[in-house]
Amino acid sequence: MDVAFLPKEVNERNLSATVCVVLDIFRATSSIVTAIANGCKAIVPVLSVEEARQKAGQSERILLAGERQSIKIEGFDLGNSPFEFSPDTVKERTIVMSTTNGTIAVRAVEQAYRTVIGSFLNAGAVCRNAAQYEKDILIVCAGTDGLFSLEDALCAGLLVELLNKEEKYCLTDAAQGALMMYGGAKASVLQAVSNSRNGRRLYDLGRDRDVEYCLRSDIIGIVPQYRAGKITVDGPLYT
Amino acid sequence: MDVAFLPKEVNERNLSATVCVVLDIFRATSSIVTAIANGCKAIVPVLSVEEARQKAGQSERILLAGERQSIKIEGFDLGNSPFEFSPDTVKERTIVMSTTNGTIAVRAVEQAYRTVIGSFLNAGAVCRNAAQYEKDILIVCAGTDGLFSLEDALCAGLLVELLNKEEKYCLTDAAQGALMMYGGAKASVLQAVSNSRNGRRLYDLGRDRDVEYCLRSDIIGIVPQYRAGKITVDGPLYT
Repeated sequence: MDVAFLPKEVNERNLSATVCVVLDIFRATSSIVTAIANGCKAIVPVLSVEEARQKAGQSERILLAGERQSIKIEGFDLGNSPFEFSPDTVKERTIVMSTTNGTIAVRAVEQAYRTVIGSFLNAGAVCRNAAQYEKDILIVCAGTDGLFSLEDALCAGLLVELLNKEEKYCLTDAAQGALMMYGGAKASVLQAVSNSRNGRRLYDLGRDRDVEYCLRSDIIGIVPQYRAGKITVDGPLYT
Repeated sequence: MDVAFLPKEVNERNLSATVCVVLDIFRATSSIVTAIANGCKAIVPVLSVEEARQKAGQSERILLAGERQSIKIEGFDLGNSPFEFSPDTVKERTIVMSTTNGTIAVRAVEQAYRTVIGSFLNAGAVCRNAAQYEKDILIVCAGTDGLFSLEDALCAGLLVELLNKEEKYCLTDAAQGALMMYGGAKASVLQAVSNSRNGRRLYDLGRDRDVEYCLRSDIIGIVPQYRAGKITVDGPLYT
């Protein structure tokens, strides 16, 4: 089992026999997991605002979601706070989501055997899902603008801990490192993340509720899967 | 204060006002610190065996050091175990050292304000040295063949802990992560590293003594500096 602290570490690796779990805790994958749990039909992650508008133009039923510097993009239906993806808003809808770090991360591993979307929220479900294939597992942290993000690495450490409870896996150095990092922080992940770059930015914007919500472990039992440019729920609900 | 878990994370950063500490615990920087402490005049780190032979050809007084897959290169005077760099062998000598990961790491930061060579062995001295310039500090882990190395990351965490005792620095996410990782491992770094890739490889080769020695903290009071392709002791001895 391996952890990539940044998507660029994955470059050119053959992932045809690897299950990849993508993490972008603040806030893309937390919002995606929430939206899919709330009945959203599919999410199309895109890089640019232009790409988002172009794809959304194909149907009036499509919702546009995205932010720049944590502020909703003008003319979009939704920003990137998980609280915006309520059942009333997203049920049966397709969402085109403009998210730079998250999109780079899922695209980096789109050749994988499976690519699933993880977060603290669905930690247990995503681990049960990833383990069932009996393949190698790579946890990919999205990071932020090409830099290491603490909250992604800590979630990776939690997933390594859950997956390796029975010590069935051989852990790479990075997986061991993520596990130790999480071990040093798990007494209070909220406190550990309070000085992280993205944590501070969200607090500065008054998004305390988002920070607290995105760090809650194992409250959602579904696992979104990325395939052919689209995120949908993977198979039956895992609870 | 920042930590790069791999040299490639440093690409294109302006380091003209940054002190960089390079770590390649198993075993290049541990051997370099030991050699300089034992009176070696200068070490020239090079990438390839050919480059090493070419540089060594310039004088009979030059010692050639290097290994591939932890085995001494044929025709070289020394391998890469710190125990080979004894005072009897290295005093007043110049060493050309072929080390892939360590050389990539020092070259990645050669434009820095200062580039110093760190290890567990000289942890205290390298921190006092790096702090005296009152500049930003970047700790660069060499990693192994482009992959994260646990022993380098744990040493980075120790240096962050020592440097930030008075909480004067602003820590990036990576620096906070290294600190948490070290916090989770410091009760027994030796045990934490025993399952790392390089640790296991050295044990497999019967180099237990090297592993134990390279993880000893703060037993050497000197700080080697890299400048213009050469490593020499930086200024007076720090003790």
